[in-house]
Amino acid sequence: MFATSLEAEAAFYEAFGNADVEAMMRVWAFSFDAACIHPSGPRLEGIPEIRKSWEAIFADRVPRAIDLRGRVVIGSDDHRIHMLEENISVPGTSFVAPPVLATNVYQRLRDGWYIILHHASVAPGALEQTQDDSPDQPAPGTRLH
Amino acid sequence: MFATSLEAEAAFYEAFGNADVEAMMRVWAFSFDAACIHPSGPRLEGIPEIRKSWEAIFADRVPRAIDLRGRVVIGSDDHRIHMLEENISVPGTSFVAPPVLATNVYQRLRDGWYIILHHASVAPGALEQTQDDSPDQPAPGTRLH
Repeated sequence: MFATSLEAEAAFYEAFGNADVEAMMRVWAFSFDAACIHPSGPRLEGIPEIRKSWEAIFADRVPRAIDLRGRVVIGSDDHRIHMLEENISVPGTSFVAPPVLATNVYQRLRDGWYIILHHASVAPGALEQTQDDSPDQPAPGTRLH
Repeated sequence: MFATSLEAEAAFYEAFGNADVEAMMRVWAFSFDAACIHPSGPRLEGIPEIRKSWEAIFADRVPRAIDLRGRVVIGSDDHRIHMLEENISVPGTSFVAPPVLATNVYQRLRDGWYIILHHASVAPGALEQTQDDSPDQPAPGTRLH
């Protein structure tokens, strides 16, 4: 199917841009370990849960323009980790979503490369830090991580 | 140094719990590709940026208790991807941080395993979905991803 992790990535974002659930699910590794974390979402585990989430996201049937920036790839012959910034907008409207940072893990299976993990989180303009001056009594909102 | 990715992980979270920058940085792969995304933060690239972020986070010198849950490990002989839920609290106080979902990528270098990517994002209690009924005009707040 996908000869490289880059081809799998292209198919993933093409399906995403077209809000096409069937095409999206063809990119996923059929594995119990498959996991997907949408921005501010929980960790969805397994293909049925992941499929349901894309069905919900694509229910609007709105085509997205997705501008990918800052790709860094690490990994080896059978696992590739792609870090990316996703910039999503809706053509014909003024809607622009905040940038999303994605860590996508691709796995080489018998017949090609598939995505096995998509971890996405909203990127800020700049790192917001709430520092606390009283180390012994961290208030709610203290940045522990 | 660390014979397995699990040993590197244990050292990472021990340093985190102790708010110990030096110990934390001993777990990181000294690589241009090293990257770190703290919850709601940008992608920090390279060891100097990553170090600065942990110095800021640990500036409170508050020891954290970190309860790790739901570990799933994928990967191969030279790269391991650990998915985890971090539950951080401050012993002796009532402070409990919201659960954080982490994707940690470990890389085997000549002398052992090191972390090369830490991507963390706040986990919700449940997936929040804002659905829009008017597909042609997604309003700000529409869930494109």
